[in-house]
Amino acid sequence: MIPKGFRVIKPEIRVLGVDDGIFELRSGGFATVVGVVFRGGYWLDGVMHTRIKVDGFDAGEKIAGMILGSSHFKQLRVVMLNGVTFAGFNVVDIKKLNEATCLPMIAVIRDRPDEESIREALKNLPKSGERWKAMRGGGKMYAVQARAGAAKVYVQVAGISLEDATKILRLTSTRSNMPEALRVAHIIASGLTAT
Amino acid sequence: MIPKGFRVIKPEIRVLGVDDGIFELRSGGFATVVGVVFRGGYWLDGVMHTRIKVDGFDAGEKIAGMILGSSHFKQLRVVMLNGVTFAGFNVVDIKKLNEATCLPMIAVIRDRPDEESIREALKNLPKSGERWKAMRGGGKMYAVQARAGAAKVYVQVAGISLEDATKILRLTSTRSNMPEALRVAHIIASGLTAT
Repeated sequence: MIPKGFRVIKPEIRVLGVDDGIFELRSGGFATVVGVVFRGGYWLDGVMHTRIKVDGFDAGEKIAGMILGSSHFKQLRVVMLNGVTFAGFNVVDIKKLNEATCLPMIAVIRDRPDEESIREALKNLPKSGERWKAMRGGGKMYAVQARAGAAKVYVQVAGISLEDATKILRLTSTRSNMPEALRVAHIIASGLTAT
Repeated sequence: MIPKGFRVIKPEIRVLGVDDGIFELRSGGFATVVGVVFRGGYWLDGVMHTRIKVDGFDAGEKIAGMILGSSHFKQLRVVMLNGVTFAGFNVVDIKKLNEATCLPMIAVIRDRPDEESIREALKNLPKSGERWKAMRGGGKMYAVQARAGAAKVYVQVAGISLEDATKILRLTSTRSNMPEALRVAHIIASGLTAT
C-alpha cells in the first residue's frame, strides 16, 4: 500500500497502541494482547484485547481481527505496535497488517534490537526463516527523536511516511519518549496479567 | 478512623480508582476487579487487579489485599471506588476498607441509587441483612458537583472529610463528571472482560 499522506494531523487523532502482557516463555500457552485507544497523547478512550499463541504465528491475524471487530475501528487513524514481536517470537508483518486493516502502522521500540542475538534465538524455534522474513518485512528501522531531550526510539512504518509517523510520535509522546498509547498499553497489559 | 485532614492537595496526588469488569449475573462465578493508579486527573501510572466472587462477601478483603500488596501502595493518598457494590452485591464496607488500608475512601456513583429496588434485589440473596448493613455502613450519601457544568455525582466517604473529598473530585474529574481514575478503571475493566 502506498503511504496515505495525512493532510493535517489533528491533536486529538485517534491512535491505537498495542502491547502484550506477561506470559510463560516457551510455554506453548497463550498471551494476552491489549489494544488501547487514545485521543492524541492525553485521553484514554477505549480498551480491547485478544489472545495469541506464545511463539505462534497468529499475532497478525488476531490483532487484525481485534482491530476490525472493535467499536472504535472507524475512529482509528493509526496503529502503534510495541515492536513487531509479541508473545515471544509471534511476529507481526506490519505491511500485511496495514493491508488487512487499511490503517497505517508504526512499530516503535525503545532499544535498537540486536540482530545477532535475535537470529540465535530464532534458531531454537520452528519455521525460523518465516519469522525472520516477517520481521524484515517491517522494512528499514529508523531512529526518531519523538520527545525533545529524551532518548530516541526505533521505528518501522507501513502505509505511512516516516515524516508523518514522526509528527504523530511527537504529538503523542506526552509523558515519556514512547507514545502515550504504548506506554499505557504496556502498563495495562502487564498489570492485568501479573499474578 | 477520624478523617485525616489534607494540608495541601497536590495536583499530582496519587489516586487509585477501583471498578469491576463484566461478569455473569447470579453465576456464582468470579469477576475481575481493576485498580488504576492515576497522578491527579491526567497520568496513568499503574494497574492492578484481583478477582472476587459474584454476589460473594470477599470484595472488601480482596480489594484491601490488592492495595496493600501493590508496589504503588506507598504512593497512594486516596482510594476511589465506583460505588460500594461490586460483582453484583458483593458489598464493600468503606469504613472497614479505610481501617484496613489506612487510606481515605471516596465511593462515587453517577446516579443516586434507588433504595427501594436495592432492598427488593437483596431479598433474593443470602445474608441480605449483612449486605444492607455494609452498604449503609458507607454512611450518608452526598450530591457533589465535581465538574462545573456537568451532572452531580453521589458520594460516600470514610477517613476523609466531605470538603477534602470534594476538592479531590474537582481536581481529578478532568474529562467527565467522574474522576479520571474511575472513568479509566471502568474502560479497562470492561474492555478486558468483554468477549
